[in-house]
Amino acid sequence: MTTELLVKDVRPLGGETTDVLVRDGRIAAMGSGLTPTTPDATVIEGANWLLFPGFVDAHTHMDKTLIGLGWHRHDAGPALLDKIEHERRLRRDEGIDPYQQSSRQARLAIAAGTTHIRTFVDIDTEWGLAGFEGVARMREDFKDALTVQIVAFPQSGMLVRSGTVELMDQALRDGADVVGGLDPSTIDRDPAKHLDTVFGLAEKHDVDVDIHLHEPGELGAFAVELIAERTKVLGWRGRVVISHAFCLGGVDDAELGRLIDLLLANDIAIMSHGPSGSRPAPPVMRLREAGVRLCAGNDGIRDAWGPLNMPDMLLRAFLIAYRNNLRRDDEIEHVLDIITHGGATVLGAAAHGLAPGCPADLVLLDAETHLAAVIERPTSRLVVKRGCIVARDGECLV
Amino acid sequence: MTTELLVKDVRPLGGETTDVLVRDGRIAAMGSGLTPTTPDATVIEGANWLLFPGFVDAHTHMDKTLIGLGWHRHDAGPALLDKIEHERRLRRDEGIDPYQQSSRQARLAIAAGTTHIRTFVDIDTEWGLAGFEGVARMREDFKDALTVQIVAFPQSGMLVRSGTVELMDQALRDGADVVGGLDPSTIDRDPAKHLDTVFGLAEKHDVDVDIHLHEPGELGAFAVELIAERTKVLGWRGRVVISHAFCLGGVDDAELGRLIDLLLANDIAIMSHGPSGSRPAPPVMRLREAGVRLCAGNDGIRDAWGPLNMPDMLLRAFLIAYRNNLRRDDEIEHVLDIITHGGATVLGAAAHGLAPGCPADLVLLDAETHLAAVIERPTSRLVVKRGCIVARDGECLV
Repeated sequence: MTTELLVKDVRPLGGETTDVLVRDGRIAAMGSGLTPTTPDATVIEGANWLLFPGFVDAHTHMDKTLIGLGWHRHDAGPALLDKIEHERRLRRDEGIDPYQQSSRQARLAIAAGTTHIRTFVDIDTEWGLAGFEGVARMREDFKDALTVQIVAFPQSGMLVRSGTVELMDQALRDGADVVGGLDPSTIDRDPAKHLDTVFGLAEKHDVDVDIHLHEPGELGAFAVELIAERTKVLGWRGRVVISHAFCLGGVDDAELGRLIDLLLANDIAIMSHGPSGSRPAPPVMRLREAGVRLCAGNDGIRDAWGPLNMPDMLLRAFLIAYRNNLRRDDEIEHVLDIITHGGATVLGAAAHGLAPGCPADLVLLDAETHLAAVIERPTSRLVVKRGCIVARDGECLV
Repeated sequence: MTTELLVKDVRPLGGETTDVLVRDGRIAAMGSGLTPTTPDATVIEGANWLLFPGFVDAHTHMDKTLIGLGWHRHDAGPALLDKIEHERRLRRDEGIDPYQQSSRQARLAIAAGTTHIRTFVDIDTEWGLAGFEGVARMREDFKDALTVQIVAFPQSGMLVRSGTVELMDQALRDGADVVGGLDPSTIDRDPAKHLDTVFGLAEKHDVDVDIHLHEPGELGAFAVELIAERTKVLGWRGRVVISHAFCLGGVDDAELGRLIDLLLANDIAIMSHGPSGSRPAPPVMRLREAGVRLCAGNDGIRDAWGPLNMPDMLLRAFLIAYRNNLRRDDEIEHVLDIITHGGATVLGAAAHGLAPGCPADLVLLDAETHLAAVIERPTSRLVVKRGCIVARDGECLV
């Protein structure tokens, strides 16, 4: 039986007021004065609110958010390894439940308008696949409200922690969607072997690749080269993301140009979340102008790594603008594209958008313009996933 | 006649729940089970909300915010002079009313918990003292709800624009509280003479000094030296602020140490707002640890310079933490001190705080801890100025 949803009087990304007719989960028509063809169609009075495609959080860590567990006192040291060890200790001592925690984040993300999410799940010899299993259960629970991709991710190291590769392999057999990697030189101490292993798992399970690369400057640039080489050899063009990629902000202009050519030649996408701090970060506008595909994510939400992130992609858009000093309208529009269509292409949902034929994954909110929405971030949002209302007034209905 | 306000069951900066008794605009007592001594006392049921001292915005530009005028399309070029010219053109073409605009910002600031504000007002040969007069009128209107300091500020240059010094002098005679300066080398092309003029006006009118210093690296460091020399000669210790001071993040560690010594020797305060972009910015924790006084402000709110700022000092605290990568509890507590007590000392309100004897300038809001308030920034706030309720549920009552 056909189901219909009519969204009346909304402004798509700040454009002219229009109606949107949704049929069987897809946008069927856009225009003035549309009427449903079924008698029991749901009707949303848009009241001239703004309409966005669903937001795409292309990089987060739902298994280990501490949201809902009381304020976590942060006192860990500044180094990456301090934070990894602090987190493992916390996990050991407090028994964080990945199913419960990822479900909590899912509800907040849906309420804020996120319709697609890529979440990294720590695969570790200490807790095996418990994180993956909990998040996979959440993915099933929320499947009608949130498209979830799971990345099998060796947060504590892979080669340096014997048994991890086998667990990654098992997670991919059991339904992880993507294989992750992490700082092949600084964590695993053997960049070629680390990346060979990651791309080997990608080939074996026919999955995409998403590599956390915090390594700065020339060391990070070397890792980009190694990743590009393997992408080319394996024919994995369009299937690889480098997350963070701080090195792209820490090399000179000529070297950046060379790295951009490598990214373009292999259609490798970059994930940047507009990181905290002053260290170099990928220059978002330069990469956009060159044609590099970009996506963004909220990274870890109030977890052992720090309290600064929240599960709202409009806040993320603001932080990317702030970190890159993007003040012009056209620049902020690029950021809105990154948190919607940019992320969707990375998650294999390239038809994401506001046009007939696209899945009806929609966010409605009240602001003067689509750009003011990034600055003001009203919390009262109405969210539609595949034609069904999944959040209203900032509350998840799932 | 004595007036009393009893605030029941609040947690001062996340501490133990207590009552606060306010008498004649000052905190008279704090403790459990307090009762008013007058029959007509106002009672606020704190419901275990957090209690903060009023927030202090020590650097903003209320005369030229575009808030309430419809979304302003930003397309100005990237250079400082592009933005100054863009702003002058806008002002000419659109006739921005400084009284109306500063009043709009005042209401939003009060609603967000700001009880003290230092605002720069452009003094320019084209519109003379119109900006100052409008903001002075706003200051009078809001005097029971918001402590306003006005800085006479030569935004378009001072020496390079003949007649500006005379207008600055007039503004200071007419009630401007502070004399401002701006990039003595890059804008006015004559750093010694620029600063001699600014400090000359300070001496003549017995007012504090607040200088915008965007100049980077060694050029900015040279300006810091010149400012310190004049502070010492004039005996203006404790009466000078350097705003932005990007150069403190752009020199090597030894040079930074030398500049910190100059700041400490002359008790010069630094204003940093955790600037957008990746350019160097003052290292907040390093300056705090050295004992340099720090304050913060929202800078221009959605004006011709860009749309990224909003008049909420909790958002500012978050951005300072984000820009400086401050994730630890003790670090975020330092930022809360900067946006309250730090700003208050700069505005000459050193008794600001949560203790008997302090003026009753208070903010109540609902969050788990004082640190969660920085991350979540609930908009429903109850604001008290000198013992009177001036905002409730995020709405200014003035």
